[in-house]
Amino acid sequence: MNVSPIFWIAPGGAVVALVTALILALQNMKRSEGTEPMKEVAKAVRIGAMAYLKQQYKGVSLFFAVVFVLLCVLAALGLQTWFVPFAFLTGGFFSALSGFIGMSVGVRSSARTTNAAKQSLNAGLRVAFSSGMVMGLTVVGLGLIDLSVWYFILRQVYAHLPVVERLTAITSAMIAFGIGASSQALFARVGGGIFTKAADVGADLVGKVEAGIPEDDPRNPAVIADNVGDNVGDIAGMGADLYESYVDSIVATMALSVVAFAGSGFEVNGVLLPMVLAGVGIAASILGSFLVRAGEKAEQKVLLAALRRGTYGATILSAVLAFLVVKWLLPGHMQVFWSILSGLLAGVIVGYFTERFTSDSYKPVQGIAAEAKTSPATVIIEGLAVGMNSTIPIVITVAVAIITSYYMAGGASNPGLGLYGIGISAVGLLATLGITLATDAYGPVADNAGGNAEMTHQEPIVRERTDALDSLGNTTAATGKGFAIASAALTALALIAAYRGEVLHMSEKVLGYVKDLNLTLLNPRLIAGLFLGAMLPMGVSSMIMRAVGRAASKIVEEVRRQFKTIPGLMEGTGKPDYAHAVAICTKAAQKEMIAPSLMAIIAPIVTGLVLGVEGVAGFLAGGLAAGFCLAIFSANSGGAWDNAKKFIERGAFGGKGSPAHKAAVVGDTVGDPLKDASGPSLNILLKLQSMVSIVVLGLVLKVSSYLPWLK
Amino acid sequence: MNVSPIFWIAPGGAVVALVTALILALQNMKRSEGTEPMKEVAKAVRIGAMAYLKQQYKGVSLFFAVVFVLLCVLAALGLQTWFVPFAFLTGGFFSALSGFIGMSVGVRSSARTTNAAKQSLNAGLRVAFSSGMVMGLTVVGLGLIDLSVWYFILRQVYAHLPVVERLTAITSAMIAFGIGASSQALFARVGGGIFTKAADVGADLVGKVEAGIPEDDPRNPAVIADNVGDNVGDIAGMGADLYESYVDSIVATMALSVVAFAGSGFEVNGVLLPMVLAGVGIAASILGSFLVRAGEKAEQKVLLAALRRGTYGATILSAVLAFLVVKWLLPGHMQVFWSILSGLLAGVIVGYFTERFTSDSYKPVQGIAAEAKTSPATVIIEGLAVGMNSTIPIVITVAVAIITSYYMAGGASNPGLGLYGIGISAVGLLATLGITLATDAYGPVADNAGGNAEMTHQEPIVRERTDALDSLGNTTAATGKGFAIASAALTALALIAAYRGEVLHMSEKVLGYVKDLNLTLLNPRLIAGLFLGAMLPMGVSSMIMRAVGRAASKIVEEVRRQFKTIPGLMEGTGKPDYAHAVAICTKAAQKEMIAPSLMAIIAPIVTGLVLGVEGVAGFLAGGLAAGFCLAIFSANSGGAWDNAKKFIERGAFGGKGSPAHKAAVVGDTVGDPLKDASGPSLNILLKLQSMVSIVVLGLVLKVSSYLPWLK
Repeated sequence: MNVSPIFWIAPGGAVVALVTALILALQNMKRSEGTEPMKEVAKAVRIGAMAYLKQQYKGVSLFFAVVFVLLCVLAALGLQTWFVPFAFLTGGFFSALSGFIGMSVGVRSSARTTNAAKQSLNAGLRVAFSSGMVMGLTVVGLGLIDLSVWYFILRQVYAHLPVVERLTAITSAMIAFGIGASSQALFARVGGGIFTKAADVGADLVGKVEAGIPEDDPRNPAVIADNVGDNVGDIAGMGADLYESYVDSIVATMALSVVAFAGSGFEVNGVLLPMVLAGVGIAASILGSFLVRAGEKAEQKVLLAALRRGTYGATILSAVLAFLVVKWLLPGHMQVFWSILSGLLAGVIVGYFTERFTSDSYKPVQGIAAEAKTSPATVIIEGLAVGMNSTIPIVITVAVAIITSYYMAGGASNPGLGLYGIGISAVGLLATLGITLATDAYGPVADNAGGNAEMTHQEPIVRERTDALDSLGNTTAATGKGFAIASAALTALALIAAYRGEVLHMSEKVLGYVKDLNLTLLNPRLIAGLFLGAMLPMGVSSMIMRAVGRAASKIVEEVRRQFKTIPGLMEGTGKPDYAHAVAICTKAAQKEMIAPSLMAIIAPIVTGLVLGVEGVAGFLAGGLAAGFCLAIFSANSGGAWDNAKKFIERGAFGGKGSPAHKAAVVGDTVGDPLKDASGPSLNILLKLQSMVSIVVLGLVLKVSSYLPWLK
Repeated sequence: MNVSPIFWIAPGGAVVALVTALILALQNMKRSEGTEPMKEVAKAVRIGAMAYLKQQYKGVSLFFAVVFVLLCVLAALGLQTWFVPFAFLTGGFFSALSGFIGMSVGVRSSARTTNAAKQSLNAGLRVAFSSGMVMGLTVVGLGLIDLSVWYFILRQVYAHLPVVERLTAITSAMIAFGIGASSQALFARVGGGIFTKAADVGADLVGKVEAGIPEDDPRNPAVIADNVGDNVGDIAGMGADLYESYVDSIVATMALSVVAFAGSGFEVNGVLLPMVLAGVGIAASILGSFLVRAGEKAEQKVLLAALRRGTYGATILSAVLAFLVVKWLLPGHMQVFWSILSGLLAGVIVGYFTERFTSDSYKPVQGIAAEAKTSPATVIIEGLAVGMNSTIPIVITVAVAIITSYYMAGGASNPGLGLYGIGISAVGLLATLGITLATDAYGPVADNAGGNAEMTHQEPIVRERTDALDSLGNTTAATGKGFAIASAALTALALIAAYRGEVLHMSEKVLGYVKDLNLTLLNPRLIAGLFLGAMLPMGVSSMIMRAVGRAASKIVEEVRRQFKTIPGLMEGTGKPDYAHAVAICTKAAQKEMIAPSLMAIIAPIVTGLVLGVEGVAGFLAGGLAAGFCLAIFSANSGGAWDNAKKFIERGAFGGKGSPAHKAAVVGDTVGDPLKDASGPSLNILLKLQSMVSIVVLGLVLKVSSYLPWLK
């Protein structure tokens, strides 16, 4: 039986993405890494980063092996299909591969960026941005190719089933692919976040504060660890993170499609739309990246405009292509296009507000900086307030997007279509991930390039340029973060809807009848779940923040030890033992990432076993609403503190070394674990919880049928 | 027509409470205020506090006048009954009166406590605690007498109706009484919180940090304002706050009673139970207070045991009385008693965990203090983590309480009874408010007594004793806070259930048919509401924190100005202008309290008009789950930082003046607005939103019927 020819747009787009990524990577590798010392520093970072990843993948493999066995047991008991364990494995594998490839290119691009920055700002941008594009295209390419292959295989396996049953079976199995991707991403984010922030805080506290040497000073034993952290946290972690966002939004929408179009004749096209949309989005991303051009001597402002031209160009192009795709695949359902558009618009608006609250061109960050004149305490209070305040416009925007994408798709008359509309709006948002991720991922490369410049004593102009690139990246990354966070909320919501569909489907399979669900707010189990769900993001955040604290204190001790015991270190005649600091970070991150990650995975299972499926539904909804707010707060407080410090460093309120600067450094340090460790983990958590709940559904339903209070 | 004789237990208990309060107050007033300087300081604080309250009540009166007119308009349009505007007014009036009386006694007791502390620790405790008892008994006495009077009047007015209709009409009108109490409480908490924290932060930043003079030094121009703040925030604000908790839990349960017992023959007894329970709880509180006795030379440990004996004794007694009352009123529904007991138990457990996370006898606070050795940043990170971490056991406890109180009451077979069980568990929790509030309210009196001792240069032993009383209060207050926070969650949940009942009732009245409600998680309007509701507590918190910041900076300027312009101030020859600092705080608090309070009141109305009643239900549920977590986090982070600082001040990690102490002061300052301004406001917010939604329901239903998307 042949699949629809339209389907081939998806793997086609994926292949184009991967080939383009390869070409860009090879081009980048041809450039010079600069002088010997520059190569050496880059090599040290590369070795450290790879050593970390190796260790990380070892630990995660163990987890995957255990879960694989458990899923096989579920399958053997008839509580899941046999595809689930394997889909789970591939999801995890490709998520890890995305992070690995992105980071491999990243660690090879930083010295090249430094070297290019010697020539001009624009040259530096081109190298860093193209390494970001490699990452972006790898993520979307791998995601889409893997989804396509699974779809193709399952399509053949279930070819004998009638269309609705077939699509239900396919999409159910594909959710397991998402859970693999999300679990891996969570470990990557939590572990990478702990590593990077422990190294950062440790290096700063002893180096900057106690020893009084500048940031990225080669005498600081934690300086390589700090640079490794940028790579494993902000590149490998982010790659895995967005890989799962991308994949989850697609599988969630596919799962919702079956109910939405059942009996309409558009069943298959509805399922294909998310994948095809992603495929054309890749084209839009690549075309958009050509718009990122500027003259050789361009200034920061011109470069910013060039980057924006790229992302906005790709977004507009993607919207146009989406219109054509919907017209072609779902001619009777053009409303679905308006859902996509409302999602896209929400992403842009959220990006705008993210920038508004975290860029030093605006009042909130300037207000935090002004509080630094008074005391560190007022810096913290103001930063907390700014982060909390930023939830107001962002949550309102997403709430409006939920309502419009639901009703635009026709939810008033067909709720299934409305839910599909919510899912597809997230897919539309992430269609241009190829380029939006590039603007996000090139930041850490520029950051590392700056570190390289500092450690190899380049001329000040080089460091100035890499700093300019870094701060440019912070600004454009706001758009990327807006897309990521808005899509996380929409996707998680789609997954909750999918959860309900799966309950009906699985209960028939496992219990022999369709379970009567009471998902109203009057169900006390649902309400208890809502409370527990709302609590979990705070609980997990607290665990991650403490883990960062513990890991950081180990680095602090190590750096102090090296300063004390290595002769001539401060004078520059002795050489610090960088590798040992990296090893300590690696070990600490590996140990500390386990508890919060497992808590996130186990909590929805326990909730299900105690409170039943309705309790889980409440748990997921509470977690989504509260976790979304906490994620926005964490990201924006942290971003605002960071930029308030940079604002002062550029000369405001006394500049570097002033009391105001010291107060602002306190804010930045507090914000670090929030914005780079606990905050981004929440985006993954929200989706992972839903998918874990879906995968263990058979078990929960079976157990529930024995518990008197859940009957 | 005669009311049931059982009814008279309620007003009877209320009268006993008020008479006992009067006796205690008169006894207290007979004691000496000490020397002339002590009297002078007390007088200055008294005048400042009264001036503030006068101003506050003026502003709030304006608000009440406007809302009264609006409610009259609603009544005139037939969208509410004519009792609503008047019940609203009385609720506000008595809430204000509770705060006023409590504070009047408080400001008259601080110098007397100082004077008694000259004699012994126990003598000081007796004075401070009895002023707390006056406050506690006034709150419960006024609350219950007012509820009784309204019940009695409405009972006569609706005497002609059949029993179910009659009780529905009575309980609907009585909700309006709650909304009056809650609005007033919100203004009192927000305004008082802004005042007290602005004065505190302002006094500390300029006095302690810049000028290097100790806390409560009479040379600090903001020192009287600081003491006034303790009274208007922690006494008047808290009195109004707990008045509304008490009243709301009772009216919410009464409203749920009608459905729970309809047709069972126990309709009237079900409605009376919450009031009667409150009545016997008063007796238990008074008897419990007799257990608070210790020898004349007793030490802190003995006194702590004495206080605990009082609260736990009253709790056990109240449980026994509750058993008898349920047996008497609802002989066929003894399960209701188990709901009460599970609520009580939840309160005790939450109190235990609150203490566990905020007392320096345990690891969390000691861990924060240990971080102070490193830097202020790590103090903040650890404190945030501790606050977030504390949500885990507390939310789990409350979730268990929800489930058990629901199912114990028989919710499995009769959901109405289950919801009643949730409501009555909160009433049971608050039944002994008379004594638990006393342990909470005597703290600020002891705090002020310490200020008085410092300003009038008493011997160090006196200050040590008042400090011991203060810290004793912090420990016992944990139980009180546990009760308050657990009851807020349970009451708010009961109010949401009541909201649903009111929708059915009002839609029949306003639209002519019973509205078909879709309160499932699949309703996109409910989900959008859930997001918005979860965001609001953060939004309002950010507004309050910023308001504190702005008000504090005004005080900072004023204190700096006085230090600069008043000759001989630092040398002790010039006298600061205390009154001007108080006036500035008053003005700032009055101005700043408006926006956050109005936001809290208007948000659910706007949500209703845009998203309809299902959107409101989601909004309330999201606000409850997320706001509850945020409230716990705010209170416990703040409490933990405060006690970490005190732990260091008592000698740990270098003691007063050490770098660790400075770092801990940063934590304490950050925690101040969280624990005393934004945090406690959230408890009120959760309930107020539900009640506002209920009162404007007629309007929302009417408007919704014209909006195409809400039809």
